[in-house]
Amino acid sequence: MGNHLPSSLAMVPFVSVDNMMRLVNTIGAPKMMSEICDYIEADFKRWPEFDKTPRVAAHSEEGVIELMPTSDGEYYGFKYVNGHPANMARGFQTVTAFGVLAKVVNGYPVLFSEMTILTALRTAATSALAAKYLAPKGSRVMGMIGNGAQCEFQALAFNEIIGIDTIRLYDIDIQATEKAAKNLRNTGLNIVVCNNAEEAITGVDIITTCTADKQNATVLSDNMVGSGVHINAIGGDCPGKTELHRDILLRSDIFVEYPPQTRIEGEIQVLEADFPVTELWRVIEGQAVGRKSRDQITLFDSVGFATEDFSALRYIHHQLQTIGHYVDLDLLADPDDPRDLFGMLDRAKTTN
Amino acid sequence: MGNHLPSSLAMVPFVSVDNMMRLVNTIGAPKMMSEICDYIEADFKRWPEFDKTPRVAAHSEEGVIELMPTSDGEYYGFKYVNGHPANMARGFQTVTAFGVLAKVVNGYPVLFSEMTILTALRTAATSALAAKYLAPKGSRVMGMIGNGAQCEFQALAFNEIIGIDTIRLYDIDIQATEKAAKNLRNTGLNIVVCNNAEEAITGVDIITTCTADKQNATVLSDNMVGSGVHINAIGGDCPGKTELHRDILLRSDIFVEYPPQTRIEGEIQVLEADFPVTELWRVIEGQAVGRKSRDQITLFDSVGFATEDFSALRYIHHQLQTIGHYVDLDLLADPDDPRDLFGMLDRAKTTN
Repeated sequence: MGNHLPSSLAMVPFVSVDNMMRLVNTIGAPKMMSEICDYIEADFKRWPEFDKTPRVAAHSEEGVIELMPTSDGEYYGFKYVNGHPANMARGFQTVTAFGVLAKVVNGYPVLFSEMTILTALRTAATSALAAKYLAPKGSRVMGMIGNGAQCEFQALAFNEIIGIDTIRLYDIDIQATEKAAKNLRNTGLNIVVCNNAEEAITGVDIITTCTADKQNATVLSDNMVGSGVHINAIGGDCPGKTELHRDILLRSDIFVEYPPQTRIEGEIQVLEADFPVTELWRVIEGQAVGRKSRDQITLFDSVGFATEDFSALRYIHHQLQTIGHYVDLDLLADPDDPRDLFGMLDRAKTTN
Repeated sequence: MGNHLPSSLAMVPFVSVDNMMRLVNTIGAPKMMSEICDYIEADFKRWPEFDKTPRVAAHSEEGVIELMPTSDGEYYGFKYVNGHPANMARGFQTVTAFGVLAKVVNGYPVLFSEMTILTALRTAATSALAAKYLAPKGSRVMGMIGNGAQCEFQALAFNEIIGIDTIRLYDIDIQATEKAAKNLRNTGLNIVVCNNAEEAITGVDIITTCTADKQNATVLSDNMVGSGVHINAIGGDCPGKTELHRDILLRSDIFVEYPPQTRIEGEIQVLEADFPVTELWRVIEGQAVGRKSRDQITLFDSVGFATEDFSALRYIHHQLQTIGHYVDLDLLADPDDPRDLFGMLDRAKTTN
């Protein structure tokens, strides 16, 4: 009854965790983040072309599961991502993710990929991209509060993309700081282990906050933050989860990815719904001014947006065509006659 | 530097198209639809427990790509599904789908499955379930307008679940009808090939409409529909796509899955936003009356809802534990120390 082997139409390239690690280690994490940063920048520049929506979140007591779809009219992408702060203590990842890129013209997926590692890369790339436009010129020193899974990626992306050479680390859990310091040992970065948040941000050009508590914490209070710094706030990313004291927000010029989502999830959830913010894409595209003066505090209130995942998936999709590191999954039913799904199933009886 | 093999936490069971066909053919399509129907019925009975939202649709000129998430608090599920009416002419499936079931407590997926075949099964199971509550008692004859990929599944589900023994087929494309008639040859059903829609619905107890045009078509006009029938309308499932004349709707008692979604996508999109409809789950749960009289026209305006996919994924998840037919995918990054994602990546350099 014909050839039962799945046709090429049935196949979707799949990048497992193992293959993603191969891909990252073939290219090198810093270079890969720099290249993903270029993709994200290019997509921010054509922001109006994207079909945008706040992510679709299913909240529970333990955490959140989110779907983040977007499309540029040619490709459609979405990411599944969870955020469960209590996972770490149970031996699970706080954040895991996977995603899909598909063709709009026929709805067929062209890539299915792990995105736990890829999200770490794109998050750091996005932070560094924002800093490229917002941080003081010639920034060299970054303080990092929160030294969890995202920490080393941020450090290396800021080094590669904007030339940060010194990282001051602090975490309420000294083991997290030790882990990060150890991993960053031979990267050429100067690593300074600090005893508290205030020490970590002393004399820095950039402050990155990246903690994981699902609550309104205050990892930075107002009197700690001097003028002229750029704050890269990436840990506040769901309702009820913020990191900065409200007074810091009031002293800052605030830049965001997609206001309808950030007002729900970001640091600015504690401000009035019409508090003025600037969309990052406008700065990148040249429609809005980023840093205006040496004394200004700029704040990138980052929650992560679907277009960044889309850019990262596009990047991976392009790499596969040259570097490889994937397997084909038999994901799509592809009968010889598209109407004959039942016949395909029925004929499989004899071959299975 | 430790064992680099992915741990069991990294693994997600994957059911490919080939393995889904094995599973269906091991259990038997009619029995499997009947069992999925039981899962769907059980979940309709606990409808208020579900986190419900209209599906998230990305429309284009060529079709639509949708994400359909839901959760019962213990499990979270979503389906990716496309609908591209022009695909068939290009050799692609009109509808393809895949889905994921995850644990709410930690956000980790427990199943990744093809859902092109599974959607066909769950759609037919849902239709038959609605008919069990709404069709005339002792229904034996069903007319089917539209003999595409869904047709045989509907016929077999109605046979297995409510005892339909005769199917009258009509499609504007005679080849579709011939395909369906051929596939249903040895199933014990009486198959009658008809020359037009009117002939197909002559003397029937149930009318199923399942065409695929993305436009407001009128496959049934008012004078064709006699009193006392149950209409199972499954082809109208996106804005601008309906199958029935408005006057038929006005003569019918209308039952729907989830009103906020059906008012956007179903046959009732042509009616006023507050036109009275009954939620199917209320009938199943005993809160609302289904069929009241022999003369009444009941209409199940079905667009497909996320809970039905959730029920189907739960069913597959349970089957895997006994029947098997899956492979493990290395989808989730699982470092020994959950905070040490970078270290895992770095250590993989030496083993990859």
